[in-house]
Amino acid sequence: MSAPLLSCSRRLRRTPFSARVEAAGIRAYTVYNHMLLPTSFDTPASDYFHLKTHVQVWDVACERQVQVKGRDALKLVQMMTPRSLAKLDYGRCFYTPFVDENGGMINDPVTLKVDEGCYWISIADSDVLLLAKGLACGAGLNVEVCEPDVSPLAVQGPKADDLMARAFGEQVRDIGFFRFERLAFEDTTFVVARSGYSKQGGFEIYVEGSEYAEAVWDALFAVGADLKVRAGCPNSIERIESGLLSHGNDMTIEDTPFECGLGKYVHLDKAEGCIGLEALRRQAARGHAREICSLRIDGDAVPGCTEPWPVEVAGEPAGYVTSAAWSPGLEFNVALGMINKPHWAPGTAVEVIAIDGKRPGTVVALPFE
Amino acid sequence: MSAPLLSCSRRLRRTPFSARVEAAGIRAYTVYNHMLLPTSFDTPASDYFHLKTHVQVWDVACERQVQVKGRDALKLVQMMTPRSLAKLDYGRCFYTPFVDENGGMINDPVTLKVDEGCYWISIADSDVLLLAKGLACGAGLNVEVCEPDVSPLAVQGPKADDLMARAFGEQVRDIGFFRFERLAFEDTTFVVARSGYSKQGGFEIYVEGSEYAEAVWDALFAVGADLKVRAGCPNSIERIESGLLSHGNDMTIEDTPFECGLGKYVHLDKAEGCIGLEALRRQAARGHAREICSLRIDGDAVPGCTEPWPVEVAGEPAGYVTSAAWSPGLEFNVALGMINKPHWAPGTAVEVIAIDGKRPGTVVALPFE
Repeated sequence: MSAPLLSCSRRLRRTPFSARVEAAGIRAYTVYNHMLLPTSFDTPASDYFHLKTHVQVWDVACERQVQVKGRDALKLVQMMTPRSLAKLDYGRCFYTPFVDENGGMINDPVTLKVDEGCYWISIADSDVLLLAKGLACGAGLNVEVCEPDVSPLAVQGPKADDLMARAFGEQVRDIGFFRFERLAFEDTTFVVARSGYSKQGGFEIYVEGSEYAEAVWDALFAVGADLKVRAGCPNSIERIESGLLSHGNDMTIEDTPFECGLGKYVHLDKAEGCIGLEALRRQAARGHAREICSLRIDGDAVPGCTEPWPVEVAGEPAGYVTSAAWSPGLEFNVALGMINKPHWAPGTAVEVIAIDGKRPGTVVALPFE
Repeated sequence: MSAPLLSCSRRLRRTPFSARVEAAGIRAYTVYNHMLLPTSFDTPASDYFHLKTHVQVWDVACERQVQVKGRDALKLVQMMTPRSLAKLDYGRCFYTPFVDENGGMINDPVTLKVDEGCYWISIADSDVLLLAKGLACGAGLNVEVCEPDVSPLAVQGPKADDLMARAFGEQVRDIGFFRFERLAFEDTTFVVARSGYSKQGGFEIYVEGSEYAEAVWDALFAVGADLKVRAGCPNSIERIESGLLSHGNDMTIEDTPFECGLGKYVHLDKAEGCIGLEALRRQAARGHAREICSLRIDGDAVPGCTEPWPVEVAGEPAGYVTSAAWSPGLEFNVALGMINKPHWAPGTAVEVIAIDGKRPGTVVALPFE
């Protein structure tokens, strides 16, 4: 079927940028952390080529922050991730797989130490707030857990440095990858990180205080006309091409960090306190039998992947595809999927049972070419 | 703006009934517990009058179950609710406000004791699974917490008893309100409760095992043509008319059970272990200064309420409206909102600053007439 309509209500929270997003001609949304997330402003090809050529401003307020503050803050955050936080100093952003007691992926946020004894967990689509509150109450920790009034705005694309330098000053160019600085805006400061959900380069501005949101948006557009700045959003084609995983799409609570290719973030001997550590140790000893892979799918443009598509090798089950899109740049279909051992080797020929029929495909090592 | 498009992906989970819902001509969805929830099949007036006259089958698989099982199961569930569970016997359904450590509403599920040491929490739209896992891990409880393969299907409307009696046998007529029985279907049994998110009467079938879902759907439609059975969905007009609250719309984590009119479910002396009990005791001693009320709003049909609309009395702030709809039955606008003391008295004249302008309104005691 074609895209259905979305019935809006207060429960699907608007963001502090929603009025600007609507004025910019939003075509479609998804819902993420009980909040509206734009998905389309123009055709898929137009949104994609613009992102890879110029610079876009993205309303990613739905990347809600879970703030953990207090004497036991570090202890609580470490309970949720097997990545050791020992080196998470002020100014750094850590990609942190979050797991449950079975080692299942429950989120894959970026965690920032924004102050002594204060962390922001910039979450994917699940209520980490409730997990953190549960752990804190259950273990009697000395922390406060809340969702602060912080709404990330992403600036992504090859001209992101130029746009941000004009709006926030030349010092943005010196911010390292997955590092942040607090930069001045009007009478306040914002955490500004070199990060974002694309491989085109760029920043995320953690807009603290909804009352500043439209002014930040306007400031970026005021200085960027010649850079061809426009409203955009996380681009599903580009992120699949780049191998960026999406929790809920490519990985769920049924999958382990090892299966998600995130084993390098599992520190079995240095993440004491993590609730999934025992399960992860058992999984590491056993080895894993499937792993998320990039795939090329032949033929015409695939429809959207809204349920896993079986993958077969010689007629036998070999895994499933979880995300797929036609790349107008590569002129073939790109995909991500969970592929069983030994079929996960790059170059393996597979068959993908897409919703509209069977197509040949190939497991590939990034980058696509 | 008119309804935007919804971009579908695996992350917005389809339900085991989705193919049937699509075949029935679904027009629009919302997203609830990371899952598709139908919101419209025909015009609002048609969906509404049909529900109040005949019988509808609703895909409410998005009312996911959180299963808590094991020696400490009761203890864990009681940690989340201030309603005493001492009398929650097998066969009963308890409406249970869930609160955080501040006494803020984090969900308002129906909890069922489905077996000795095993509870199903039939949740509204937030990840109670993660709260329960956090509490269990934090406190070191002896329980297993999971989301089982259970997808509720609701049968609602004045002819629900007749339809259900034909499909499941005459014994359904004897099921009391908020009681359940296990009834046979093919080679299995399902929990069938007299409950549902309308005031038109009816049942919820907890379809256990996705492989049975389409057969249950088809069985209901096979025997109901003369009852004019058709696909429906929770009806926002009817539920506002009936004063049924929606978590995320009418109440959030910022609101207490007292403010939500749920004080009768707060058992300050009989819910030992509830994480919000201390906060709720302080709130009870202090009294509350606002409460959810029903309102009538004058004038033409209001647009959808996607952000709280301020309510004023004599030009001063008096609260806000959170849900509103034109009732084609009553021929005026019905609403729910959080109204400040003393303006919450039925009969109070107010002004509602809707998105499209200011309108006169009145606080009312149910039922609307």
